[in-house]
Amino acid sequence: MARSNYYAMIMAGGRGTRFWPRSRRASAKQVLNVIGSRTLIQQTFDRLRPFLPPERMWVITNDALRGQIARQLPEVPRRQIVAEPAGRNTTACNALAAHILGSLDPNAVIGVFPADHVVLKPARFRRLLATAYRAAERGSLLVLGIQPRWPETGYGYLEFPEGTKAGTPQPLPVVRFHEKPDEATAKRYLEAGNFYWNAGMFFWRADAFLAALRKHLPKTATLLAALPPFGSRRFAALLRDAYPRCENISVDFAVMEKADNVAGLAADDIGWNDVGSWNAVYELLPQDAAGNVTRSAELLSAGSARNYVDAEGKLVALLGVEDLIVVDTKDALLVAARSRAQEVSALVKALEANKRDDLL
Amino acid sequence: MARSNYYAMIMAGGRGTRFWPRSRRASAKQVLNVIGSRTLIQQTFDRLRPFLPPERMWVITNDALRGQIARQLPEVPRRQIVAEPAGRNTTACNALAAHILGSLDPNAVIGVFPADHVVLKPARFRRLLATAYRAAERGSLLVLGIQPRWPETGYGYLEFPEGTKAGTPQPLPVVRFHEKPDEATAKRYLEAGNFYWNAGMFFWRADAFLAALRKHLPKTATLLAALPPFGSRRFAALLRDAYPRCENISVDFAVMEKADNVAGLAADDIGWNDVGSWNAVYELLPQDAAGNVTRSAELLSAGSARNYVDAEGKLVALLGVEDLIVVDTKDALLVAARSRAQEVSALVKALEANKRDDLL
Repeated sequence: MARSNYYAMIMAGGRGTRFWPRSRRASAKQVLNVIGSRTLIQQTFDRLRPFLPPERMWVITNDALRGQIARQLPEVPRRQIVAEPAGRNTTACNALAAHILGSLDPNAVIGVFPADHVVLKPARFRRLLATAYRAAERGSLLVLGIQPRWPETGYGYLEFPEGTKAGTPQPLPVVRFHEKPDEATAKRYLEAGNFYWNAGMFFWRADAFLAALRKHLPKTATLLAALPPFGSRRFAALLRDAYPRCENISVDFAVMEKADNVAGLAADDIGWNDVGSWNAVYELLPQDAAGNVTRSAELLSAGSARNYVDAEGKLVALLGVEDLIVVDTKDALLVAARSRAQEVSALVKALEANKRDDLL
Repeated sequence: MARSNYYAMIMAGGRGTRFWPRSRRASAKQVLNVIGSRTLIQQTFDRLRPFLPPERMWVITNDALRGQIARQLPEVPRRQIVAEPAGRNTTACNALAAHILGSLDPNAVIGVFPADHVVLKPARFRRLLATAYRAAERGSLLVLGIQPRWPETGYGYLEFPEGTKAGTPQPLPVVRFHEKPDEATAKRYLEAGNFYWNAGMFFWRADAFLAALRKHLPKTATLLAALPPFGSRRFAALLRDAYPRCENISVDFAVMEKADNVAGLAADDIGWNDVGSWNAVYELLPQDAAGNVTRSAELLSAGSARNYVDAEGKLVALLGVEDLIVVDTKDALLVAARSRAQEVSALVKALEANKRDDLL
């Protein structure tokens, strides 16, 4: 069990447009049950719950999702579900969390968890948490690295020292942060053995993070430092004014790649997946004999293989088709090649350009 | 304009299971608007209307469709829309029509028209009708042949004498009726030039057809000859008893291939299509620049070509897919390869085997 100054901050502000047509502004990926019966944010809560009480869990999201998240996580005190006034990438979000928690508890150690990832081995994950919070408590800005199992081009990578072994319990220096690689590079990373997936999970003391922020992104640091105490009468209004002026930049780029107290944990397999597309859902769910995956639908398949089908309350008949994503909703239907599942977000951009707010 | 003893019999008893999920028992292909805004049976009516008044149009259908057809063809007197007590293929249907019309008008000449075909050049079609009825009036059992435009394997063929020219106004002897050919045979037919598509349209005097029936299918002939006059009190009950005992056989096979007074008309292009599958609908409707055909849906296409999309009131997004049939309804969704559109009827058989009456 965690110490009383350990907090979890669940980042739930994303839109997850690659899960259109099920994901919409008011029902982003993290509040959908794309894997299992609980939604992704509920599963995030569930896997943290044995480690931390809900009183020390915080959620940062946006206005469109706040009410729904509160309903999905009734155990989390409602005032701990905070809406960003605008989307400003991960630095502002983490700065806000550090500002709030640091002002409530000067010894706060924060674990940062994306709301929309999957961890298939939660017990192993929780053993890692104990190590990670402890290292953070000593002052490191800690990032979680996951041993890669295939040459994924959709993730960023952490380069650890040569010869790094997965499951090393001590924090390691991060030689370099690498952006999403091309396929040849990803293969090289996998063979090298000291390149780990950047899971977007971080651990730091609130004061350590804010100190790094003052040094490497002073404008955002100053804007948020000027806020009155969280929960005070003027907090919301002043946040609404200050937040949109914060730099729109990722915490990897703004802080982690620059700070000198960064460390990484080289995790072995915890069954982590960022569930980045419908194809990731396909890969995660059980397949029938023909490799088809069906969710919320009845499937009638003839000569069809390796398809993903999601059409609540409907019979879906597939005839002679392979490697498709089929997702049906009341007002929109997606039929996509599995290999192009990442491009679903481009469809959403096209709908935005066409001002189809009814479908966004 | 037709003589006063010319009648049209629209055969509308089919189920058209290849148009599932839009076609159901209560909404078969002929009552659907798969091409254009009018349904196929309405289009059949429309193209006959300038030639024959509705008072001389008759429809033979089944109990499930009779009410809907009456609503779709309000001009046709309701008593002329007759329900078969059971589906018994085309011989019994034609025998019933000849029995009814022959008893009402001893000089009746009947043109038989499937309710669910398309004729894109109706004026040319009507010029053919005049020739066909006239030949039938002289005693022939006349069948309409359509000059083939591609080596279709989905149609039966009529073999005319060598050297036959399309558009010959005189009826010609039919050398032989041929079943649906394989592809090599279909190509040979196309090259030979004297093989014509059997359009399933027939013209005969009621008495001539009944005479041929007595000779070649005496059981069915006797069963129907024993019926009381059409419209009499006992007609419906006795038909319900006799009809299911009629032979279940096509009129081509039972009568046309055997009778010695058969003739054929070698039509040139009247834009005829039996609309046998969703792929035929795809081929008949206008395509966008990428070859996609959309009906009753809004299409958002990225890297997708040559697809048919039918999803009323819905936005359909296609991403990286080609040559698909996508047909969405309230309770069922079909995604099929266009090349396998003929096999949709096998899906319907599977639903029947699973007793999914809710989807049939």
